[in-house]
Amino acid sequence: MADKSANAMWGGRFASGPDAIMEAINASIGFDQRLAAQDIAGSRAHAAMLAAVGILTDSDAEAIREGLLTVLSEIEAGTFRFSTALEDIHMNVESRLGELIGEPAKRLHTARSRNDQVAVDFRLWVRDQCDAAEGALVALQRALLAQAEAGAEWVMPGFTHLQSAQPVTWGHHMMAYVEMLGRDRGRFADARKRMNESPLGSAALAGTSFPIDRAMTARELGFDRPMANSLDAVSDRDFALEFLGAASICAMHLSRLAEELVIWSTAQFRFVRLSDRFSTGSSIMPQKRNPDAAELVRAKTGRVFGASVALLTIMKGLPLAYSKDMQEDKEQVFDAADSLMLALAATTGMMTDLRPDPERMRAAAGAGFATATDLADWLVRAKGMPFREAHHVTGALVARAEAKGVDLPDLSLDEMRAVHEGITDDVFAVLGVDNSVRSRTSYGGTSPVRVREQIARWTEQLG
Amino acid sequence: MADKSANAMWGGRFASGPDAIMEAINASIGFDQRLAAQDIAGSRAHAAMLAAVGILTDSDAEAIREGLLTVLSEIEAGTFRFSTALEDIHMNVESRLGELIGEPAKRLHTARSRNDQVAVDFRLWVRDQCDAAEGALVALQRALLAQAEAGAEWVMPGFTHLQSAQPVTWGHHMMAYVEMLGRDRGRFADARKRMNESPLGSAALAGTSFPIDRAMTARELGFDRPMANSLDAVSDRDFALEFLGAASICAMHLSRLAEELVIWSTAQFRFVRLSDRFSTGSSIMPQKRNPDAAELVRAKTGRVFGASVALLTIMKGLPLAYSKDMQEDKEQVFDAADSLMLALAATTGMMTDLRPDPERMRAAAGAGFATATDLADWLVRAKGMPFREAHHVTGALVARAEAKGVDLPDLSLDEMRAVHEGITDDVFAVLGVDNSVRSRTSYGGTSPVRVREQIARWTEQLG
Amino acid sequence: MADKSANAMWGGRFASGPDAIMEAINASIGFDQRLAAQDIAGSRAHAAMLAAVGILTDSDAEAIREGLLTVLSEIEAGTFRFSTALEDIHMNVESRLGELIGEPAKRLHTARSRNDQVAVDFRLWVRDQCDAAEGALVALQRALLAQAEAGAEWVMPGFTHLQSAQPVTWGHHMMAYVEMLGRDRGRFADARKRMNESPLGSAALAGTSFPIDRAMTARELGFDRPMANSLDAVSDRDFALEFLGAASICAMHLSRLAEELVIWSTAQFRFVRLSDRFSTGSSIMPQKRNPDAAELVRAKTGRVFGASVALLTIMKGLPLAYSKDMQEDKEQVFDAADSLMLALAATTGMMTDLRPDPERMRAAAGAGFATATDLADWLVRAKGMPFREAHHVTGALVARAEAKGVDLPDLSLDEMRAVHEGITDDVFAVLGVDNSVRSRTSYGGTSPVRVREQIARWTEQLG
Amino acid sequence: MADKSANAMWGGRFASGPDAIMEAINASIGFDQRLAAQDIAGSRAHAAMLAAVGILTDSDAEAIREGLLTVLSEIEAGTFRFSTALEDIHMNVESRLGELIGEPAKRLHTARSRNDQVAVDFRLWVRDQCDAAEGALVALQRALLAQAEAGAEWVMPGFTHLQSAQPVTWGHHMMAYVEMLGRDRGRFADARKRMNESPLGSAALAGTSFPIDRAMTARELGFDRPMANSLDAVSDRDFALEFLGAASICAMHLSRLAEELVIWSTAQFRFVRLSDRFSTGSSIMPQKRNPDAAELVRAKTGRVFGASVALLTIMKGLPLAYSKDMQEDKEQVFDAADSLMLALAATTGMMTDLRPDPERMRAAAGAGFATATDLADWLVRAKGMPFREAHHVTGALVARAEAKGVDLPDLSLDEMRAVHEGITDDVFAVLGVDNSVRSRTSYGGTSPVRVREQIARWTEQLG
Repeated sequence: MADKSANAMWGGRFASGPDAIMEAINASIGFDQRLAAQDIAGSRAHAAMLAAVGILTDSDAEAIREGLLTVLSEIEAGTFRFSTALEDIHMNVESRLGELIGEPAKRLHTARSRNDQVAVDFRLWVRDQCDAAEGALVALQRALLAQAEAGAEWVMPGFTHLQSAQPVTWGHHMMAYVEMLGRDRGRFADARKRMNESPLGSAALAGTSFPIDRAMTARELGFDRPMANSLDAVSDRDFALEFLGAASICAMHLSRLAEELVIWSTAQFRFVRLSDRFSTGSSIMPQKRNPDAAELVRAKTGRVFGASVALLTIMKGLPLAYSKDMQEDKEQVFDAADSLMLALAATTGMMTDLRPDPERMRAAAGAGFATATDLADWLVRAKGMPFREAHHVTGALVARAEAKGVDLPDLSLDEMRAVHEGITDDVFAVLGVDNSVRSRTSYGGTSPVRVREQIARWTEQLG
Repeated sequence: MADKSANAMWGGRFASGPDAIMEAINASIGFDQRLAAQDIAGSRAHAAMLAAVGILTDSDAEAIREGLLTVLSEIEAGTFRFSTALEDIHMNVESRLGELIGEPAKRLHTARSRNDQVAVDFRLWVRDQCDAAEGALVALQRALLAQAEAGAEWVMPGFTHLQSAQPVTWGHHMMAYVEMLGRDRGRFADARKRMNESPLGSAALAGTSFPIDRAMTARELGFDRPMANSLDAVSDRDFALEFLGAASICAMHLSRLAEELVIWSTAQFRFVRLSDRFSTGSSIMPQKRNPDAAELVRAKTGRVFGASVALLTIMKGLPLAYSKDMQEDKEQVFDAADSLMLALAATTGMMTDLRPDPERMRAAAGAGFATATDLADWLVRAKGMPFREAHHVTGALVARAEAKGVDLPDLSLDEMRAVHEGITDDVFAVLGVDNSVRSRTSYGGTSPVRVREQIARWTEQLG
Repeated sequence: MADKSANAMWGGRFASGPDAIMEAINASIGFDQRLAAQDIAGSRAHAAMLAAVGILTDSDAEAIREGLLTVLSEIEAGTFRFSTALEDIHMNVESRLGELIGEPAKRLHTARSRNDQVAVDFRLWVRDQCDAAEGALVALQRALLAQAEAGAEWVMPGFTHLQSAQPVTWGHHMMAYVEMLGRDRGRFADARKRMNESPLGSAALAGTSFPIDRAMTARELGFDRPMANSLDAVSDRDFALEFLGAASICAMHLSRLAEELVIWSTAQFRFVRLSDRFSTGSSIMPQKRNPDAAELVRAKTGRVFGASVALLTIMKGLPLAYSKDMQEDKEQVFDAADSLMLALAATTGMMTDLRPDPERMRAAAGAGFATATDLADWLVRAKGMPFREAHHVTGALVARAEAKGVDLPDLSLDEMRAVHEGITDDVFAVLGVDNSVRSRTSYGGTSPVRVREQIARWTEQLG
Repeated sequence: MADKSANAMWGGRFASGPDAIMEAINASIGFDQRLAAQDIAGSRAHAAMLAAVGILTDSDAEAIREGLLTVLSEIEAGTFRFSTALEDIHMNVESRLGELIGEPAKRLHTARSRNDQVAVDFRLWVRDQCDAAEGALVALQRALLAQAEAGAEWVMPGFTHLQSAQPVTWGHHMMAYVEMLGRDRGRFADARKRMNESPLGSAALAGTSFPIDRAMTARELGFDRPMANSLDAVSDRDFALEFLGAASICAMHLSRLAEELVIWSTAQFRFVRLSDRFSTGSSIMPQKRNPDAAELVRAKTGRVFGASVALLTIMKGLPLAYSKDMQEDKEQVFDAADSLMLALAATTGMMTDLRPDPERMRAAAGAGFATATDLADWLVRAKGMPFREAHHVTGALVARAEAKGVDLPDLSLDEMRAVHEGITDDVFAVLGVDNSVRSRTSYGGTSPVRVREQIARWTEQLG
């Protein structure tokens, strides 16, 4: 029965023991078992340090470190029996260690507390997620780069308000996402760097009187340095919140691409075709290619936002140092991290398989006076007209074309001159979509030459 | 292997089959198995109706209804094998039904679609949660009522800004929460009523050409009526959002009480003592009685808020009718409902066991000129002084007492008259905390006579 | 100078006075002046009651009531000088009243406190917003009803996953939103009913020893009854949170319609044309009709969600009774209410002016084997085939049509019989989109006869 | 009348003109006038660049640049008349420029669009807020450092679960917040660095065919470089979201300190006394010192979280490039930035003025077996006992002291030896709170020697 072990753990002071409700709300082993590898790494570093400073004998430390590896292998093999009565991963591991190695296990917890175990385990886990996000983001950037390379010259409508505004290239559009994801990587990298300090050795909250070497454990666990204030170290969840903040923006980016995939996949747009792998069909409506993966990626955004709100709310107004409220941090971050990784993988899959339809896109790009801006700019550039006047003249030309039911390039030079006599024959060079995109050679512009530069720079950077 | 069944389900059109990513992001059986009972209830109602209108034979319907009960008992017994390849609870149940009863199982899905199964299952589940919330709220109200009855006369400080403002009674304070929870019950009841319409029979989105009887299935499932528009019925998640909205306010209420329990349990306040059941200790610090359950209740608030934000975000901007984004609704609501129910149970447990310390509270209530307002009101009431003047006089009296280092009742009548000569001997009657709380007899006020009326009204109402 | 009045108000105890920071963070007059009418109504009710129970003379009460009307008229005329030193609307009004009527003004604040003024003012304001929301929702329902009536027979694609799934009617689609808005109205009505209790007479938090008549002030202010617990009355912000919850769901509904308008307005869909009033153009791209109003309606959703999160966060973990944190409630609700009302008005405007294109919609509805489901249902209904088999046969027929590059109605009977010999000539009746929508006569279905019933019911209900 | 100008701006295509609703929802001048200085800086940089590359004459550019300074001075002087008909700050400025300098004003908009004006203005504004946050954070760190220096030796209870756990020092507690704010500064600095790229020159979305020099405008505006992709540049709101993310975590930190101030200011704790400047009183209850500023700081947290949720929601699922939804970004960020700056200033004010009560804190720290951990650690350290055994012995000693109604140092050596005979006389050295805090010399620990090192490091860093 649970109560007995629990009582033991609490020093026999609780007459009644926790009942089922308390167990349900209090025990964390149901979720913090995901921290097993981190907990064991932390304990192994701690044991090695205790031996190095003379608190443990070398043989005890060795027994502990070996025993912990055995525990880890049992957990990885799925043979470990987790106990709710032991509440959390820390006690589960320590208790099993005691069974395996006896006496020395009782010395492991010297000069540390559960609070700094929690702090170090979760921080290591989140740090791993930053690395995983970096890897997944690079993979998605590569998939987008491949799309950009294939279609650096493909003309498509550039939308504002989902209305065709000016022709752009497929490559240009893909590279916009590469930029966004580049910023995402920067955010995860900055978060990782900031969180990469070791809380281990803070003890319950005040530090310890044992002559521990926090720099040593920090080093062994790959941290840049120990955290500078033990009260802060056990109270801090910034690392999780900053991860969630970066994840939120990243998920939002993915939701934008997902929305585009959903729209582009409609029968009305048909700019792209999702692969069978990442869509579902209807047994009787073969044309129906439901963009399920894109919709789910879009929806995951809500989940990540929700986790961020949850943890911010939890931390609001908590006095120092540790409050039990903080135990509610993990499931939120686990869920957000899982959601983000899945969304990144699914997006990479979709973009890898995606088959754009350059003809459909090009046709859409050319419709609707899409090069009117080019005409206006030409009037300014070639004819020295003030910008606002050039727009007025262009408006009149478009109105004339519209009245005739034709597009701009279909007007004759005479018809154009009737609107403004300064117009010359070379106007026609600016009215085609290819010339339009080719002309936009400003830095960062849609001209293929510029887009290829972007691709080259990123290709080099991604190695 | 998964792909095969999946292919079968999608009509053999997908050459490649979903790979692991797609399966991970797309399959819902990992969580929607919680809807098994609801799914089976919905299917049983559907089968009965199909027979009633002549679409199924009675014997087929009977075979289906019996078979479904068998499936349910397998699930409840834990012997059912859920298959990820079958994606969701609906296909898992139907597939097993087929194994059990053969041919008739293929006729069950006539005149309905997965979309209305999803809609009906989840709505039934959320409706159950409204009922569960009602029950849990009543239990907590009862625990609070018991506290109020015990301490209807106990004087404690009434706080504003966490500063002692005026004496109130423990009973009054407890009844404030009873009122809040009463409104929570109202919100869940209103939500339940509004959601209690049946989407079943909406088919994929447009209704069906089969002569189904939606009123009959609605009736069998306890719904008040069928929903009036099939497009709306498969697109609607208002019921889940309204549940989350009510849960958010309710969780916020619990967080306020939890905060008070945490503060009242400090060594500095010691207004209450939490039971061993709902606190944890330290093996070596017996005075330490960590209010873990209260802290966790407070933290669950963030989790419920987060779920609400998540689902609102998911639904934002979704075109009609069904989009796959909506599949992300369930886990949020499951988690919020579990969190709320656990928080309610834990709070009920804490309040049932709670041992207030009337002496500590009374001592705190009397300190710091806590009856200065009573004095000012007396000057207005008994002496006809304008309110703002009475406050001025009271301020001067308090300043005099403060200068002497005594409290108001310790001033002599002469000292008082030196400030304002109209003060008479009966002033002393208003300066004690007991008189103070007894005097506040306005409706809803803290006077024990009023508080007992509140208790009586609620006791009757709770039956 | 501000400090002087401020000092006066605080009883001269503060040596230094609030500096600019404190004034900036503490004063609420910058926003709570929006509560002027409510504050004055509350004070007038309070004065009348004080006279009725004999606390004020009739002439004092009359002077106060008249003076308050003068203050109100000054505020409405824009001639009132708001003072930051007087911090809030309550002190601004009372101070001006003193200038206007002298002595009696000092008696107004008898038997009440700023806390119950805040509580009553804001509650009245939010109650007004519920009424405003009801009016605005009815107006939008009317606009949608008009669209539904005009297009009860217009066939359009019914989408799932933004992929054409089955033909539906424009009227059916419009009526789905009428249903959603009907639920929104229910939520605002329930919230209004629940909040319609008077906090007035709670005094600072504990009630009062004056023989006030809370039922009388409740009546005069249109409340159903006084709130039952004074601690609760000054601590409660449920009414604001419930309003924000209802507003969030309503805003989400509007975001879905807005999203559809944006998509339907694309050059690729062209299902609808927004009026000039509610779109913006480009001076040189006449085809560009930016759906600005729809986009802004969609975006307002975020603003309403944000306000809800803000106030929930503010209230989390606040001990009873009043804490200054609660002062941050108003701007959030003001902004959310303004955003919602504007979004409702803009949507009503857009839907009133909207010009759908029935031909474009009908053409889209017929493409892509849209009646495959009808065929499958026919096989079940007319031929007694089990549902899953019927789907298999339909899939084979569609595959044959797809291979030939034709749609289903273009297959000959022989070709159909080659797939399944039981198919008869009357199959062709189910393959057209008009027959398809006409056939879906289940309750709530897309058949015009059903849609017209919905329209009739709502028309009657809206009066 | 508004319509006329509006029509002019939209090229005369809108027959009806925007009505009041559209104006209300569409015009941004009501809030984006806060961007005036940024808009003018952007335009001046653009004009200088246009001249440098030969698109404008030097004299036109000079006239524009001078005219813009005049406009700026009019705005700063409050004499500028903003027009709603001109919709936004960009058109308001340009229109006024035209009045002032005539013809050349029409050439300013060459080779740019409103989209990149919006993008550059807002980015500059947010960048300024990062700088303002940095300044305000340093000021608060200084105030905390001063507190830490004054009280590096003051002993107070170190809390976990708001229960006294181990003695710590006031300086240690203050420095924990210095660490948190240091991370906040890092987040704002990283955000600033990442956002410090110029969108100017992206034109509407595709770049331009004019030979502009984006590096030059980037330089003039203090940006590190031009953004690399024009589609991304006009679609990106990461900079605002990242600012809100950093602001959310920072606000959360402030809410924790504010909560502590509220609790520490209670009559029950009285650890600190807030200054008159940052609290409010009651005219008749002098002991009441309401921590209004602290409560408002705590509440601002909700507001900042809400803004973050709002903008994330707005951006979710927006297709590229610009959508009008993005116009809703500004008010959220304005409000969050104002809230954060005010909260930082108020906290700095409170902490500067704060008067801790070392005696109260020390007395609280010594109560309740607060050095039991020290005793257990001593048993391990000095007596070589395994940690878990040492805890057992300590528990027994505490139980004995509790039974006698004394604290640990009050037990005699004999009484201790009755529990464990190995205990020696030097045990008493570890049982006092001063020795306790002095002994915790691990890196980051609460020992004054360690805290002074932290103070020294930060003092040097803050310069």
